[in-house]
Amino acid sequence: MAELVGNVLVGQSGGPTAVINASVAGVVSEALNHECVEEIYGTLNGVLGILNEDFIDLASESQQAIRGLRYTPGAALGTCRYKLKKQQDFERVLEVFKAHNIRYFFYAGGNDSQDTADKISKLAQEQNYDLRVIGIPKTIDNDLPVTDHCPGYGSVIKHICSTVRQVACDNEAMGQHDLVQIIEVMGRNAGWIAAGAALAKRRDQPNDPPHLIYLPEVAFSTEKFVGDVQRVLQREKYCMIVVGEGLIDADGNYVSADDKTDAFGHAQLGGAADYLKGLVEQNFPTVKCRTVKLGMAQRAAVIGGSKADADEAYLAGQAAVKAAVVEGETDKMVTLLRGDTDHYSCETGLAPLSDIANGVKKLPREWINEDGVSMSNQFIRYAQPLIQGETVVPYENGLPAFVKLEKVRVDKALPAYEI
Amino acid sequence: MAELVGNVLVGQSGGPTAVINASVAGVVSEALNHECVEEIYGTLNGVLGILNEDFIDLASESQQAIRGLRYTPGAALGTCRYKLKKQQDFERVLEVFKAHNIRYFFYAGGNDSQDTADKISKLAQEQNYDLRVIGIPKTIDNDLPVTDHCPGYGSVIKHICSTVRQVACDNEAMGQHDLVQIIEVMGRNAGWIAAGAALAKRRDQPNDPPHLIYLPEVAFSTEKFVGDVQRVLQREKYCMIVVGEGLIDADGNYVSADDKTDAFGHAQLGGAADYLKGLVEQNFPTVKCRTVKLGMAQRAAVIGGSKADADEAYLAGQAAVKAAVVEGETDKMVTLLRGDTDHYSCETGLAPLSDIANGVKKLPREWINEDGVSMSNQFIRYAQPLIQGETVVPYENGLPAFVKLEKVRVDKALPAYEI
Repeated sequence: MAELVGNVLVGQSGGPTAVINASVAGVVSEALNHECVEEIYGTLNGVLGILNEDFIDLASESQQAIRGLRYTPGAALGTCRYKLKKQQDFERVLEVFKAHNIRYFFYAGGNDSQDTADKISKLAQEQNYDLRVIGIPKTIDNDLPVTDHCPGYGSVIKHICSTVRQVACDNEAMGQHDLVQIIEVMGRNAGWIAAGAALAKRRDQPNDPPHLIYLPEVAFSTEKFVGDVQRVLQREKYCMIVVGEGLIDADGNYVSADDKTDAFGHAQLGGAADYLKGLVEQNFPTVKCRTVKLGMAQRAAVIGGSKADADEAYLAGQAAVKAAVVEGETDKMVTLLRGDTDHYSCETGLAPLSDIANGVKKLPREWINEDGVSMSNQFIRYAQPLIQGETVVPYENGLPAFVKLEKVRVDKALPAYEI
Repeated sequence: MAELVGNVLVGQSGGPTAVINASVAGVVSEALNHECVEEIYGTLNGVLGILNEDFIDLASESQQAIRGLRYTPGAALGTCRYKLKKQQDFERVLEVFKAHNIRYFFYAGGNDSQDTADKISKLAQEQNYDLRVIGIPKTIDNDLPVTDHCPGYGSVIKHICSTVRQVACDNEAMGQHDLVQIIEVMGRNAGWIAAGAALAKRRDQPNDPPHLIYLPEVAFSTEKFVGDVQRVLQREKYCMIVVGEGLIDADGNYVSADDKTDAFGHAQLGGAADYLKGLVEQNFPTVKCRTVKLGMAQRAAVIGGSKADADEAYLAGQAAVKAAVVEGETDKMVTLLRGDTDHYSCETGLAPLSDIANGVKKLPREWINEDGVSMSNQFIRYAQPLIQGETVVPYENGLPAFVKLEKVRVDKALPAYEI
């Protein structure tokens, strides 16, 4: 394989996670190992930064800053939900890449972002521009196909489980069979996130909280819900419910849909907890109902975060660079592969971007128990390794000290582009 | 002072906090030092446990369990919001105390609980029953008079500030001047909790998030709110708001009051974030608005919790025992006294329960800046020391491992009492 000399560009896309910055750290630290890599740029706000030539020089950042990305939530390069629409947009991307001699493009994101990366890669091939494009998986939703799991997922479910454990201590203290606690978590189309709350139960303690988990995969029925809550309140001191925001009814409609959609046409959800609270108050007038809505706090949680997840996100960043630079791969996404022994191990693999783009990995129906509100041991075995170990976050004056990049700008080489 | 030989009873009351168990640990560990203390009992669910003679033997708990209380949230003895109403209830309390030779009663709680302790103490004096009653301050609301601050407060504001810092990293990543993020926090009558979010700003960075803090102390005006948000969105990439649940309008009505009240006649609030979200969507139709409602998760947060707060809660428990056993004090509450040097120090003092009972310490109006949405340096100097240091929580299999007490029951000595 011919050595490809040129510059690296790395970008972040879609909703931030607790560990998407760790992937950037992995890219930067690995890229520094290879002499054929001349410059290491970051694009600000994903593809928007490419269209606008908003690049920063990542090699000029301090080593502490790059290391600090391993525990800094959010997306340090900025992200976007902008979708390249017209052919002209893609042409502009290549024009910018050529102007900056970008030969390696690493894009951390979810389904839509991998689709974008795929299209950029294909256009470069059409135009015979030597470009190696490798996607890095990222999504708290854990819904990318092929990869065993997605960086970002372990962190969000660990935060939810820690919250469940802590709130459980609180709720148990009041303990008069008259409290329903509802914790609303993210998850638009799949219940991966809500399902993860099942890890909060101690092994062999099926009656531990969360007592009821409601997932988009199970059509919601008010009658069943009322029966579920009643059963728990008869047995336990309180009833803790975890509900995914994307709960749907038997007709496939969101139980609490807002009429707004984002740039990709996805419904913007919220309010599932309030919806259930209404049902509790209607059907159990003497019972108190309290809600917690974790919102964006759940995907930004690095305090007590999953070290396994942060390490794998970093590994995925490194693997992307190795695949492109050493193995000459392109048009692929890094995948996480689980070893097949009982002892969890994780290696990286590669899959064609087209296999990932716009695909969705569903939570296997057989991992949801027959009661529809708890998870099987198979799911527990799957998810348990993803929350192991704790991220070490440095504190300063009582609060977490996160990294902010210097963001030294790269000179623009082209006329402005109208988006 | 004559040595008083007999048994200790400790109880917890009101809403749990992150550190109310640390106070119980302080009571137990200190009580073990004194030979005049024969048995150390805990009452389950506060005064309810006294009326029902539901006592457990705390001396029989393992040392690990008692130590583990220092980082276990909730109220390990159980708590209650039951208010002793009739004279008969108070008579029953004394009857139970006599039956179990309770000579020392320590009660950790807020205003109402200190009122209860005061009444029990006074009745014992009337009846010439030698009983020493010492209250231990506890409330996330930080609204007890006399004491400089309350155990529980530092933990809740540290959690809120950490959440602000983390969510800020996330929100900044999207950065298109089109996001309003609202974080709703507790705080019924006073803005102490919401005000604490101001610590999340770095020193000398007044434009750091949270950009706007809405407190019950400042009458809410929609017009001003819309102006505030507009100003921030023009200046910053996004607008982060922290709002206390007890926001009131110019007429003194809760902007989002629920019609429910608890056993003490306090309004049960919630929904301030949703109320503000409605205003944002009405007035800024192109701006996205997202909410986080921390709910009970904020008062149960020990992960990344305040070591200063946990240590002071433990100290308060120890001090209560010393005051009663060594100094023969009764009818007092332990207070926290701040040293008057620049370097923060904290000692304990004592104040008459009657000075605490049902009193409320208001957030000083002069600590709120003139803009009504930020806090003065005086407040920062006051609150900063309360969030220092981080609680060390042990993890097991990826999740915090909290303590559950064995709860060995003490034999009942009296006929049942009808509550």
